[in-house]
Amino acid sequence: MSDLPRPDMTPEEFRIHGHRVIDWIADYMANPERYPVLSRIQPGDLRAALPAHAPEHPESFESMFADFEKLVVPGITHWNHPGFMAYFAITGSGPGILGELLSGALNINAMLWRTGPAATELEEVVMGWLREMLGLPSEFFGVVMDTASISTLCAVAEARENLGLGIREKGTGAARLRLYTSEHAHSSVEKAAIILGLGQESVRMIPSDAEFRMIPAELARAVAEDKAAGWLPFMVVATIGTTSTTSVDPVAAIADIAAANKLWLHVDAAYAGPAASLPEMRPKFAGWERADSIVTNPHKWMLTPFDFSAFYTRHPAKLRAAFSLVPEYLRTAEDASARNYMDYGVQLGRRFRALKLWFVLRYFGQEGIRQILRKHIALAQMFASWVDADPNFERLAPVPFSVVCFRAKPQGMPEAELEKFNSSLLDAVNADGRAFISHTKLKGVYTLRVAIGHLRTEESHIRAVWELLQAQTNALSKP
Amino acid sequence: MSDLPRPDMTPEEFRIHGHRVIDWIADYMANPERYPVLSRIQPGDLRAALPAHAPEHPESFESMFADFEKLVVPGITHWNHPGFMAYFAITGSGPGILGELLSGALNINAMLWRTGPAATELEEVVMGWLREMLGLPSEFFGVVMDTASISTLCAVAEARENLGLGIREKGTGAARLRLYTSEHAHSSVEKAAIILGLGQESVRMIPSDAEFRMIPAELARAVAEDKAAGWLPFMVVATIGTTSTTSVDPVAAIADIAAANKLWLHVDAAYAGPAASLPEMRPKFAGWERADSIVTNPHKWMLTPFDFSAFYTRHPAKLRAAFSLVPEYLRTAEDASARNYMDYGVQLGRRFRALKLWFVLRYFGQEGIRQILRKHIALAQMFASWVDADPNFERLAPVPFSVVCFRAKPQGMPEAELEKFNSSLLDAVNADGRAFISHTKLKGVYTLRVAIGHLRTEESHIRAVWELLQAQTNALSKP
Repeated sequence: MSDLPRPDMTPEEFRIHGHRVIDWIADYMANPERYPVLSRIQPGDLRAALPAHAPEHPESFESMFADFEKLVVPGITHWNHPGFMAYFAITGSGPGILGELLSGALNINAMLWRTGPAATELEEVVMGWLREMLGLPSEFFGVVMDTASISTLCAVAEARENLGLGIREKGTGAARLRLYTSEHAHSSVEKAAIILGLGQESVRMIPSDAEFRMIPAELARAVAEDKAAGWLPFMVVATIGTTSTTSVDPVAAIADIAAANKLWLHVDAAYAGPAASLPEMRPKFAGWERADSIVTNPHKWMLTPFDFSAFYTRHPAKLRAAFSLVPEYLRTAEDASARNYMDYGVQLGRRFRALKLWFVLRYFGQEGIRQILRKHIALAQMFASWVDADPNFERLAPVPFSVVCFRAKPQGMPEAELEKFNSSLLDAVNADGRAFISHTKLKGVYTLRVAIGHLRTEESHIRAVWELLQAQTNALSKP
Repeated sequence: MSDLPRPDMTPEEFRIHGHRVIDWIADYMANPERYPVLSRIQPGDLRAALPAHAPEHPESFESMFADFEKLVVPGITHWNHPGFMAYFAITGSGPGILGELLSGALNINAMLWRTGPAATELEEVVMGWLREMLGLPSEFFGVVMDTASISTLCAVAEARENLGLGIREKGTGAARLRLYTSEHAHSSVEKAAIILGLGQESVRMIPSDAEFRMIPAELARAVAEDKAAGWLPFMVVATIGTTSTTSVDPVAAIADIAAANKLWLHVDAAYAGPAASLPEMRPKFAGWERADSIVTNPHKWMLTPFDFSAFYTRHPAKLRAAFSLVPEYLRTAEDASARNYMDYGVQLGRRFRALKLWFVLRYFGQEGIRQILRKHIALAQMFASWVDADPNFERLAPVPFSVVCFRAKPQGMPEAELEKFNSSLLDAVNADGRAFISHTKLKGVYTLRVAIGHLRTEESHIRAVWELLQAQTNALSKP
């Protein structure tokens, strides 16, 4: 071997291998349905197929790409499959993928304006575009985060700093802080309280009504009760589009209670937020413009490859107060004249994420995005109508957006058998390969979920999963 | 306009646009030196050049790519430029970029084994390969995080949970926890303490010696003093490769003190960790195998595009205890038989990051990576020797890895003038376009830093920045 270091691919090699990868993706996107949506490998299969040690000497790109196709692809659960209807079905898109590619190649860390002026300013611009699309007032300042877990953590940290108790310096100490959210809130709210040192006991779950919406009167009662008991209520997290059912908390009523009690109002619209771009959906968002902070994820339902979480705050100075920490080695001549986004979040290192959303917003246009969201919502309504019309099925929640909650309830089957039956039904449907659905529990009831959100999901796909559900229900209920 | 939603790019369109982007990247990587390394736009320039609103209707990929070239590229600070020697010079590579591209296209959220079996198992495998390359024992369990900010936060959270004080449930409360680190530790340590609700006061900075290494006797003294004063010492963060000078804390001696006082030992080797793959560098890492947790970033000095931070813990059950929170909707049939990585960190959503490191390790091989690191270290030694030989310059720190700290000290110039002089020198060098260097302060002394870490940096590039420094020093010291 030569003493010279292995060089990187030459431009010519990169071109050849890059075209090969692009062609593979084009073929893949043309027909992800050639694969079962849910991988069929068993735990340990891929691990067992790979060498125990990193290779000592260089290998060719051809050999590793062959292994990618032979070993990795069978272990992929295809989030791009139009039959992926589990959790929240997310969707990337061609322009989003190419934006991600350029961002990976440029390899910018946009911590400071200086280290990525275009990344910083494109972030300001696209976060402004998105804010306007969603109908939010211009007081909201946007920051691109990676995930809603981080955005929500930032919201709680900001609310904590807003108390002016010197927690940044002295820690949470003995302050008995209380945060309110619905029993249907995402687990990231409770996780933020754990991480921030407030503890799980600082989170009080407010009961929800028959449609899984936080009950404002219960919130007001809890706040009053806690104040009397020596707690310091400081925050309420309302959700527009909860994870299990996409239910919508009554944000306007919650905002009134927040205002009366000086609570920070954070709105978690991680999934449903993009639907605020539809005028007909805007009423569901009534009151969110009064929030102190909001999260919505373009990587969920706005054609942007994972990860991209949009965090908006009405109080950028508070966010900065919660997080900014500037050592000498990060000071620059532009600190007074430009924005350094590292001051507004947990991570110092920041990818150039704005590029992919810029490509997506321009490629599809606002109108194009609205049409896609409308299609998903219409498909969900159609699916719900089939559930409603079948005496062997039962719908378990309203369908405000693009997720349907239901269960099979074969006529005559006792309630006590339904959980086991639906759990088996879930496994049977997911084993087929054409669809992947997930489950939840609603007030103790085992519930199936069909979530529609991929760009390539058509009526034929929801019809296929519906027929599969019907057929497997028949098969499983035969003695 | 049709009522049909704007479709995504067809496979044929994706192929055409994708090849165009790949070709652009190939040309770019062939010669990033056509651009000034530091962008020359002024704050606000790009913002002013872009429309105030998102387009209503779709645009062509051609038009947005033209804008990328015309408007965005001039605002890029080129981390790929071989003259990028600021902060830590990081480096991607061809195979890393193609791994990132595939990961963006597959768009997997590897939160659960089920949602990305290959992503989960490839993560287990490459984190095992890397651990072995670095000479760490097999007890270390690896998790891919996004940044060292998050890895360090996880370490502190794990150490906090390890106390068994019920902080997860009840919050930090009145416990007066103390964490020790050197005055040269990265700002992310203090930031983690702020975020976790421990507060800045919980961090006690231990003085360093003349070579910027934590003084173990000072650590022992501080721990004893704090215990006597009612603090609860719980953690020490040692650094191998500090941010300002890449100094190496005496980890073995610190490990002894940690063991004697039951402190969690976290080693921050975010930058320098990859050098542990070099046998001749291994002595600098003595003692880190006794750590409770370690962070090192392949996105810094192991050819992997940003972001990829490798976090290792000896106590995976503690990490899980600190973070795991599994709502019903995330339970799967494989929970008992497979790893769900969402249980081991802050974020629920997790990109498929293992793919790019797998490509990098195979393409270059362990030997190829070692050669590249050796080359960077040799270039830094060469640069340091030039500084040492020039009576108008002064070296300000040892060079254990690939960063040189120094200043111009024109003969006869009084000490009081040197800060202003070197600050002007920094600006003059960075204005040239061929190099980007940064600064720090060492015991109050304004210090220039040349950091070598990009795959394409050669002797000619460090010679160019050295000649630039000499020429500008001459020019600026003329009356």
